[in-house]
Amino acid sequence: MNPIYEQMQTSVFERMSALAAKHSAVNLGQGFPDFGWPNEILDAAADALKNASNQYPPSRGLPQLREAVAGHYHRHFGQTLRAEDVCVTSGATEALGACILATVSPGDEVIIFTPAYDSYAPMIRRAGGAVREIALRPPEWRIDRDALQAAIGPKTRAILFNNPQNPTGRLYDGTELQMIADAAIQHDLTVISDEVWEHIVLDGQRFTPLATLPGMVDRTLKIGSAGKIFSLTGWKVGWIASAPPLASVAARAHQFLTFSTAPNLQAAVAFGMDDGDSWLEPMRQRFARARDRMVDGLKGAGYATLDAASTYFLCVDLKQSGLDLDDEAFASAAVEQAGVAVVPVSAFAEQDPSRHIVRLCFGKRDETIDAGVAAMRKAK
Amino acid sequence: MNPIYEQMQTSVFERMSALAAKHSAVNLGQGFPDFGWPNEILDAAADALKNASNQYPPSRGLPQLREAVAGHYHRHFGQTLRAEDVCVTSGATEALGACILATVSPGDEVIIFTPAYDSYAPMIRRAGGAVREIALRPPEWRIDRDALQAAIGPKTRAILFNNPQNPTGRLYDGTELQMIADAAIQHDLTVISDEVWEHIVLDGQRFTPLATLPGMVDRTLKIGSAGKIFSLTGWKVGWIASAPPLASVAARAHQFLTFSTAPNLQAAVAFGMDDGDSWLEPMRQRFARARDRMVDGLKGAGYATLDAASTYFLCVDLKQSGLDLDDEAFASAAVEQAGVAVVPVSAFAEQDPSRHIVRLCFGKRDETIDAGVAAMRKAK
Ligand SMILES: CSCCC(=O)C(=O)O
Ligand SMILES: CSCCC(=O)C(=O)O
Repeated sequence: MNPIYEQMQTSVFERMSALAAKHSAVNLGQGFPDFGWPNEILDAAADALKNASNQYPPSRGLPQLREAVAGHYHRHFGQTLRAEDVCVTSGATEALGACILATVSPGDEVIIFTPAYDSYAPMIRRAGGAVREIALRPPEWRIDRDALQAAIGPKTRAILFNNPQNPTGRLYDGTELQMIADAAIQHDLTVISDEVWEHIVLDGQRFTPLATLPGMVDRTLKIGSAGKIFSLTGWKVGWIASAPPLASVAARAHQFLTFSTAPNLQAAVAFGMDDGDSWLEPMRQRFARARDRMVDGLKGAGYATLDAASTYFLCVDLKQSGLDLDDEAFASAAVEQAGVAVVPVSAFAEQDPSRHIVRLCFGKRDETIDAGVAAMRKAK
Repeated sequence: MNPIYEQMQTSVFERMSALAAKHSAVNLGQGFPDFGWPNEILDAAADALKNASNQYPPSRGLPQLREAVAGHYHRHFGQTLRAEDVCVTSGATEALGACILATVSPGDEVIIFTPAYDSYAPMIRRAGGAVREIALRPPEWRIDRDALQAAIGPKTRAILFNNPQNPTGRLYDGTELQMIADAAIQHDLTVISDEVWEHIVLDGQRFTPLATLPGMVDRTLKIGSAGKIFSLTGWKVGWIASAPPLASVAARAHQFLTFSTAPNLQAAVAFGMDDGDSWLEPMRQRFARARDRMVDGLKGAGYATLDAASTYFLCVDLKQSGLDLDDEAFASAAVEQAGVAVVPVSAFAEQDPSRHIVRLCFGKRDETIDAGVAAMRKAK
């Protein structure tokens, strides 16, 4: 079998969710909300099951969803995408796979910023590329211009960028975005911009799509996710949006990864992308409230938390919390003995990761948060 | 961009379906039925949307679906799979992608029998492998032992096998299956066995899973499809079933292609795999009736049809029908001028394809068949 997979571990999310179930622990590990999805979208999906086709939709997606995504980005971020520039995928993980397979050829180097989502490195490698990690460090997790310049060489082909970033919860600022754009333009790189958390930015922050920076529209493959926007992570409906011809090359990679995505879920997401703008701000406020409750609880239990103002993740600094064990050891003890699953952030990097940070998902109901905080208190 | 995708065409199925829509033609091209799905399964999917989780299911699938698949294969084919040996995927196309990426390393050769489903060759190449085509010839489309032996060399790593075979409609016989098994065992090859048409075998034929041949269980990755079994092609629920450790390596490839598949669709398919055995024989009889109607109609219109007793496809031999144009030319004229979309079978091979065969999907209601036959009459 291919050595990349033979030596691979099961994803940390799957591993922690399985341990959470085994130990009946509160699951603050894998990122999924336990509230907040709009019932109207569930109704739309059920209607389409009964009243629309359940046969293959077009490979690039239902026309109404491609239109709805383009329209949504026009209203929210002033982008002028056309429906043809959108390719619907079976979740953002597939979109990442398609973009990586479409962009990378054997021998290419791809830059990622760690800690990074755990599919990035293996998929770059499976595409024949070499991974070039740039380590971001807590508590700021800032991109450093010199580190970025130093990472770029003659073989660099692409940057795989994630903004807002999972697991750090960082929304990059204008200076950092411009650094990415400058590097891409200067070295003729493609940027795969994983923007699945674009709407989960709290405290009045504003998200800027990378493609809207001057010179970036023709070199950016943007990835979006209905699972994140509507808190329906299991649906696995995502998309790639980009200018032609990148869009159509990525769509050809998609056609042989899944070909297409369930039409009833697509129809429901199209409805949500058209009609759901008014849901977004209440969703953000609800997440901010959940975040505040978890931060207060964790501080009360003696934990040092890092800033958390985008994504629904917050990081705890174990060292600053006066704990003298690494993130994997803490996470194991927490799920096995204290009854709460968290994610060790060292799982998001291969080279010299920070080993004193764990990630908690705060997209949870009050009672889940309170139970999780009580277990964290026990874990200390 | 990666040259494999840059030079690639849009899939022939997508191309013909788009032309069918553009010209308001009867679509007998892409393979999907326009009748026959069980309403109970649609109800189960709608129920699960409302009454079960819409968040990430386990990456390898809902436990009840993995159990149901294992149980189904036990009842139908006497196999002793365990639930852990099943990995649910977002359709069989994803299962193929995961199996190919998991099995093939750069420099490996993979044998396919052409005409073959159009994702095989590009995905083998994208995995770093070289494609070794063995051409089957109409009207028998038989596998030849010498051709198989001649194709195997020191770099051969795997055989990608499809039984029953799309687009030929061929169910391989025991001698041919044994040839595949002998070759695999003698040369220590893995076989990716695409068995998505396993239940669509007509006229009392019996399907044999490749893994049930002596010596094959540990070297076969079997691919199945709920979309084919329940005539719900748009749902994109499939699976990989195999013995450990192959199963878990393929599951690791899957985890970074889509991670997981919508839980409500999985729950509904689990219900169908458990409860739907009594639907299968009536489905086969209904397909056989549709096949007979289409064959009669085409013969009446002066076409020579090849045997069609598995899958829901039938092949027309243009040369034997007295037509002197190639399959692409016929298919273009048929959709643009006569109002019927068919698939040119030369699109299923790269080296020296037969160019006088077109494929028609007969999984259609009487009125669709009659309209398609009328248009075929016009195309002659
Ligand atoms: C596909 S499981 C991972 C979900 C997620 O985005 C996370 O937990 O980081
Ligand atoms: C994924 S589109 C192809 C459907 C099919 O199996 C066929 O038409 O051969």
